[in-house]
Amino acid sequence: MMTEAKNEQLERMRHSVAHIMAEAVQSLFPGAKFGIGPTIEHGFYYDFELSRALTPDDLPVIEDKMREIIAQDASFVRDEISRDEARTLFSDQPYKLELVDEIPDASLVVYKQGSFTDLCRGPHLASAGEARAFKLTHVAGAYWRGDEKRPMLQRIYGVAFESQEELEEHLSRQAEAARRDHRKLGKELDLFSVHEEIGPGLICWHPKGAVIREIIEDFWRVEHRRRGYDIVYTPHIAKLDLWKTSGHWEFYRDYLYSPMEIEGQEYMLRPMNCLGHILIYKSRLRSYRSLPLRYAELGTVYRYERTGVLYGLARVRGFTQDDAHIFCRPDQVEGELVGVLNLVLFMMASLGFKEYKVFLSTRPDKYAGTAQMWEEATECLKRALERLTLPYAVDPGEGVFYGPKIDVKLEDALGHEWQGPTIQVDFNLPQRFDVCYIGEDGSDHTAVMIHRTVLGAMERLLACLTEHYGGAFPVWLSPVQAVIIPIADRHVGYAQEIAGEFRSEGIRVLVDDRSERMNLKIREAQLDKVPYMLIVGDKEMGSASASLRLRSGEDLGLEGLADVKNRIKVAAEARA
Amino acid sequence: MMTEAKNEQLERMRHSVAHIMAEAVQSLFPGAKFGIGPTIEHGFYYDFELSRALTPDDLPVIEDKMREIIAQDASFVRDEISRDEARTLFSDQPYKLELVDEIPDASLVVYKQGSFTDLCRGPHLASAGEARAFKLTHVAGAYWRGDEKRPMLQRIYGVAFESQEELEEHLSRQAEAARRDHRKLGKELDLFSVHEEIGPGLICWHPKGAVIREIIEDFWRVEHRRRGYDIVYTPHIAKLDLWKTSGHWEFYRDYLYSPMEIEGQEYMLRPMNCLGHILIYKSRLRSYRSLPLRYAELGTVYRYERTGVLYGLARVRGFTQDDAHIFCRPDQVEGELVGVLNLVLFMMASLGFKEYKVFLSTRPDKYAGTAQMWEEATECLKRALERLTLPYAVDPGEGVFYGPKIDVKLEDALGHEWQGPTIQVDFNLPQRFDVCYIGEDGSDHTAVMIHRTVLGAMERLLACLTEHYGGAFPVWLSPVQAVIIPIADRHVGYAQEIAGEFRSEGIRVLVDDRSERMNLKIREAQLDKVPYMLIVGDKEMGSASASLRLRSGEDLGLEGLADVKNRIKVAAEARA
Repeated sequence: MMTEAKNEQLERMRHSVAHIMAEAVQSLFPGAKFGIGPTIEHGFYYDFELSRALTPDDLPVIEDKMREIIAQDASFVRDEISRDEARTLFSDQPYKLELVDEIPDASLVVYKQGSFTDLCRGPHLASAGEARAFKLTHVAGAYWRGDEKRPMLQRIYGVAFESQEELEEHLSRQAEAARRDHRKLGKELDLFSVHEEIGPGLICWHPKGAVIREIIEDFWRVEHRRRGYDIVYTPHIAKLDLWKTSGHWEFYRDYLYSPMEIEGQEYMLRPMNCLGHILIYKSRLRSYRSLPLRYAELGTVYRYERTGVLYGLARVRGFTQDDAHIFCRPDQVEGELVGVLNLVLFMMASLGFKEYKVFLSTRPDKYAGTAQMWEEATECLKRALERLTLPYAVDPGEGVFYGPKIDVKLEDALGHEWQGPTIQVDFNLPQRFDVCYIGEDGSDHTAVMIHRTVLGAMERLLACLTEHYGGAFPVWLSPVQAVIIPIADRHVGYAQEIAGEFRSEGIRVLVDDRSERMNLKIREAQLDKVPYMLIVGDKEMGSASASLRLRSGEDLGLEGLADVKNRIKVAAEARA
Repeated sequence: MMTEAKNEQLERMRHSVAHIMAEAVQSLFPGAKFGIGPTIEHGFYYDFELSRALTPDDLPVIEDKMREIIAQDASFVRDEISRDEARTLFSDQPYKLELVDEIPDASLVVYKQGSFTDLCRGPHLASAGEARAFKLTHVAGAYWRGDEKRPMLQRIYGVAFESQEELEEHLSRQAEAARRDHRKLGKELDLFSVHEEIGPGLICWHPKGAVIREIIEDFWRVEHRRRGYDIVYTPHIAKLDLWKTSGHWEFYRDYLYSPMEIEGQEYMLRPMNCLGHILIYKSRLRSYRSLPLRYAELGTVYRYERTGVLYGLARVRGFTQDDAHIFCRPDQVEGELVGVLNLVLFMMASLGFKEYKVFLSTRPDKYAGTAQMWEEATECLKRALERLTLPYAVDPGEGVFYGPKIDVKLEDALGHEWQGPTIQVDFNLPQRFDVCYIGEDGSDHTAVMIHRTVLGAMERLLACLTEHYGGAFPVWLSPVQAVIIPIADRHVGYAQEIAGEFRSEGIRVLVDDRSERMNLKIREAQLDKVPYMLIVGDKEMGSASASLRLRSGEDLGLEGLADVKNRIKVAAEARA
């Protein structure tokens, strides 16, 4: 555990290394204009306007210059100067001047080390010699002040740690994360693509990605029916008026697509699946005896996100939620929430996620309904969490506009957090849409709605699974579970025979009958992260067996076909 | 078989009955203004502007007056008059005057019988007494000339036949069709709904409808994978530019929704699934050896249809196509078409359709590509049909803009035709999108695309199945396959036990444990068209059996539980 003090010291060091990098750039690129250079997670960056575009080859040169500066061990000197003095000091630095003019204080703080002076509140190290292990990692373009109408500067990113060991550990973790990046693996394993012609953030699921999705969706459907959910399908568009009645237009507008017109009437792509479910509920009178009703839908929704924040499958403009809405009586809410949480835990375990964090998000600034409704709903969520003795943290003000919620963040194998399941209690939409049931007393009562998704979104889930498993999906999810590799042409028939038998028992198997060398085929199957490779030649044909290899490279030797088949089926059924 | 001559005579009679109805209306509603009165399938209609709205009670009164006119047996007299004479004759008939002014001929033909004269080319019966069996069926509003900006007239519909027997047979067929109407059964069986709040033509699938859809979709997926298809998912929207490149914007505009805007870029809801599949194909280099590639998607598309033509599930604005696109070499086209036709025949047989008609649609007026491309594609389709010795008719000019097609029209149990499977060869989109493969010669060749759907649309299919089976779906498709009805409270435990055991073997079963009378429960299960009812009391509990009833009302008596279970499973597996 990092202590508060150690953390502060590290922040200070990273910020000082940013200044040292700026000094190095100033000396290597005379005439450089400086933007800002804050610390970020694990390190820092600094933005520059330079006479030429930087290449990765520039980074070691800048690093060398930084090491020179550190060896000279100049002190960081704090000074307070007047605005006029600052304007003179930064007279050839237009970005700094802009900042100077925006600081309301009478005197401004600057820090100087060696030949470099920066407008900066500090704090800093005593001297450059105190800088420890660092590395410049990459260069990217960044608009001045994040505004695409302002000039594009060059941003150099770096990381810094107290020791070389910590730096190296971080870099190797980063390298592993890059190897597992779902955007990279998604391409290599042929799982999905995004096309500029269709539009950013809109996903095409390729056959192999679609196999994984279909397996999870089938599993999801069976599990939901088993737990008393009904599955429905509702349209992706609806009249704009419906979204006005619901409050989405008012509270959620920044994420909505512009309306389209049909016969003079405005329609909108749905950002959520709830309204169709409400209308199905309302298509009949419902008695207190018929509740709870649980409508589930693998529903694709469309939400606007700025191009800049889109990220592979993890942040997109169209995604399929494993959505459901539970309509129940107030006395059933807590029990339903416990049921949903149990389903969440079951699903996460089935998918192989052992670590997660639970957050309870409370009332945001913009909200619908009354404070008392929010209070009641929040208490219900808390009691359900406590009944399952699930530890949780409160995320104040992070609820959606219509109710408080529980968010579960999954942790993948590298410790990254992913937004996963969400459970929201809603006392609001039932009022807006007059969602009622006939009580035991014969009169109308307003129902409670629970919105929930136990996987989050199919797109983000695939991203998360890909990175969690580094593309080596568990057997039950592997698009191809086994590749059969005949050693010579005369073994192709035997390979096809095995494939036919395995397929008839639901195993996803391919025969690699290309006229390529066996070692190349094995290597390609390993790159494709296929769990099992069955190599078959004369010996195997003669003994109704196969030489079995795993994607790890492990060679299990000769194994009877029945045993191989059983091994694969057991692994798939165990979802291991 | 109705002969040509008999048909002409019947047409003449129906047209004359329309005139007789107009004469009756003239005499019952003085001051009536007359629109037009053509024959239609089975009968005729006539449009009137009347001083008050008609009710169903008016029809027998008009029929009585018609019978009086027929009894008087006035002759139909043809006359030719000048335009001026016609203008005088119809001076108080504004709609007739409008028609008079539009006829280019110098002299106009009128027909007179009794007190009624109509602008009409004939031919007619010799006299009113030759009219045979007729019946007025209903009244509906109809805009003059179908133009919603013109006045709304009242249209009286009638049917007429040569004999009372034929009339009665027709009426009873109509009554049966009304009983089977999927809009009526859809509501009674709780299969789907359409909501004004969401918008016309946009379908909400209720749990029971969704069960049917899911079963068919699962079946479809298994069957497609077995036949070498890959399943994909692609977005419901794409940049408008993509639809311009494809030609859809140019050729298909009347059916497209208005664009929406995202970050200054226009996007459109997809009317077809093809473009996503093309981009997946193009995401890698494809070799001649890797073809054919068959991408299938249960893809929801949105197409504009006028409100007036929307009809339940049969004609909608958003529907899910069981779509696929086959990318292949020219030498593979015919084989692929044969494969698709075999799949079509298999699917239709599985769903219980025995009758169908096959149409080959050729080049329309608006078309993309060259006439030679169309010629080649059309020949390929013909050869495939001939290889399967499928009889077909040519539908000239009914191809889609990008290629010729085969349409299969299903005939339901009542002889109604439904648009079903479609197979289109496309030599055009591959050129527009440069869809290539690397040939054996190492150079680029343009691939051929086949668009096909073997079910048509999930929405229309449910409509068709509902009417075909009159809501009594075969066991494998029944949302609820069995209802268990305990005779008294003490039998509920036994009923639940059976339900649990049946469910664990995949049978969809409910226990009706309401405190209602047994006969009511049986009647309701029959109305819900549940295939099997298991009634359980003391006798059944004592012998591990159930009293089995079918939805037909047939009582099969006591049957052991294992036999009941087996009976249901065998029926479901046989898809019978």
